[in-house]
Amino acid sequence: MQHITSIITVVDLLAAAAFALTGALVASRKQMDIVAFCWLGLVTGIGGGTVRDLLLGLPVFWVREPVYVITCLIASTAVYFMAHILTSRYRWLLWLDAVGLALVTVAGTAKGLDAGAGPVVAIVMGVITAALGGIIRDILGHEPSIILRKEIYVSASVAGALVLVTAAGIGVARPLAMMFGFAIALGVRAIAITTGWSLPTYRPRAGRTMAEIEKVTLGK
Amino acid sequence: MQHITSIITVVDLLAAAAFALTGALVASRKQMDIVAFCWLGLVTGIGGGTVRDLLLGLPVFWVREPVYVITCLIASTAVYFMAHILTSRYRWLLWLDAVGLALVTVAGTAKGLDAGAGPVVAIVMGVITAALGGIIRDILGHEPSIILRKEIYVSASVAGALVLVTAAGIGVARPLAMMFGFAIALGVRAIAITTGWSLPTYRPRAGRTMAEIEKVTLGK
Amino acid sequence: MQHITSIITVVDLLAAAAFALTGALVASRKQMDIVAFCWLGLVTGIGGGTVRDLLLGLPVFWVREPVYVITCLIASTAVYFMAHILTSRYRWLLWLDAVGLALVTVAGTAKGLDAGAGPVVAIVMGVITAALGGIIRDILGHEPSIILRKEIYVSASVAGALVLVTAAGIGVARPLAMMFGFAIALGVRAIAITTGWSLPTYRPRAGRTMAEIEKVTLGK
Repeated sequence: MQHITSIITVVDLLAAAAFALTGALVASRKQMDIVAFCWLGLVTGIGGGTVRDLLLGLPVFWVREPVYVITCLIASTAVYFMAHILTSRYRWLLWLDAVGLALVTVAGTAKGLDAGAGPVVAIVMGVITAALGGIIRDILGHEPSIILRKEIYVSASVAGALVLVTAAGIGVARPLAMMFGFAIALGVRAIAITTGWSLPTYRPRAGRTMAEIEKVTLGK
Repeated sequence: MQHITSIITVVDLLAAAAFALTGALVASRKQMDIVAFCWLGLVTGIGGGTVRDLLLGLPVFWVREPVYVITCLIASTAVYFMAHILTSRYRWLLWLDAVGLALVTVAGTAKGLDAGAGPVVAIVMGVITAALGGIIRDILGHEPSIILRKEIYVSASVAGALVLVTAAGIGVARPLAMMFGFAIALGVRAIAITTGWSLPTYRPRAGRTMAEIEKVTLGK
Repeated sequence: MQHITSIITVVDLLAAAAFALTGALVASRKQMDIVAFCWLGLVTGIGGGTVRDLLLGLPVFWVREPVYVITCLIASTAVYFMAHILTSRYRWLLWLDAVGLALVTVAGTAKGLDAGAGPVVAIVMGVITAALGGIIRDILGHEPSIILRKEIYVSASVAGALVLVTAAGIGVARPLAMMFGFAIALGVRAIAITTGWSLPTYRPRAGRTMAEIEKVTLGK
């Protein structure tokens, strides 16, 4: 059991590092200085989990365990000095981010259930943990937001959290339910990465153009 | 009394739903997918109250009562499938949003007073509850922020909260003070909707153009 | 000792006011109304400390001591009526902001240490207190973010927090360590203001243009 905990901790740190790398890469694209690299890396790496803990009324995880902060800072600094290497390994990073997304979804959802939240709230917690860091990163880095992406990303997290909560709800043992959730989140995201799969987006109905909708919704 | 509580709960949920609808409508204007509709709807519907609870050190309301989450998700999904109907009912929505604004202001301010906050802090809580969801919605949806709107909106919330706190301060019974606050917030907002009323905005003084001010304030 | 506490409180309020002034000045540049001035001033003046308190699990400081809210509101209102005076005093404001940055960094870092946080977390708390208000201000006011500035700003805060924590770590008495931290943060920022000093920013390596990096990092 101790063994499993160690593995989870390592993978947990890897996930934070993967998210931090994506944050620092945004900084590299904007040609920021090293402090900005660290700031964006930190926010992306620990932002989602921070908000989850605040919402659940739990102590914020990295205040107690600074190893998460240090991991994000190391990852961000590494990008500053080695972004040219990392960018040529972009496919690796995309997959590392996908593993991080799946893992963090499952960890966040489980933490929600453990804190006594109902199924809907637990799913929201899982998705917040997985997606909020990236959303804040995009706001701070003036990037188009993750939630505007056509490609399936947040949806993969929703799917994984849904499966975990459903499995736990029908009596599947927690570790097994977490594995199911992880597999679904990673699988959905993997399909999206390899095929560019996306959900249907909202389209104005025939006979109504976007300009017309804007006119009425904005009251122009 | 039980009867009144039920009415308040129903109206409270209606307010969350109204806010969620405005969030989902932003998603429809950006032609997002259904997950993004739900995300924006949820953030707009429960964002303000979430921040209020965190600031007051209270448990976050929807973690205990997931019915708020479910209401927002239903409203957002409805917009995804029926935005063409809703947009043609835009005036209804505008008024529903105004009722929501007034109600949420009053509920937030009262919650602040109940938590032992002084009058100034209680007003800030009321305004945060009413406005923050919309502000986050506009940031996430890359819309011009609510606080940049010329039309009176946040000010209506400020007026309502001010009246509630003043009335409570001079000894008016809480339910009556809340009704006064609600009436003022809704009234001010109603005037703004029907007349386009706005507060005077800051104008640079004669002999100083905006370009000059930018020069000094930005140190260019 | 009581005497020192009073001085700290006064300077603390001055720092909040200085930050609030910068927030309201953004509102003046965008020609907003007075409610927006107050909103931006408030967020900038108390935003960083608010997030710090939430992260540390402490009661939010201004909920208990509304004098901070009132100070920010007075400062914001003053800008609305007197921005033409303030802008011609911009250099004063820049230095007041620098003093505020140094003071708030030191106060935030010390509060982190007092709450039992380790050195890394305490530094993060100091920097968050100092920088987050300005970051939120820039997001709300649709300004280029403080973290995108080439000029040294956040780095001054990092330097001051680092010195405080190091000094405290090697046994220097807290008040003295705070003075060291304050001096370094202010000194670094002062050099940046007077010389335009900046950290080296990330540059793509030879043989790789930004367009190429964007191509791989965005997977275009």
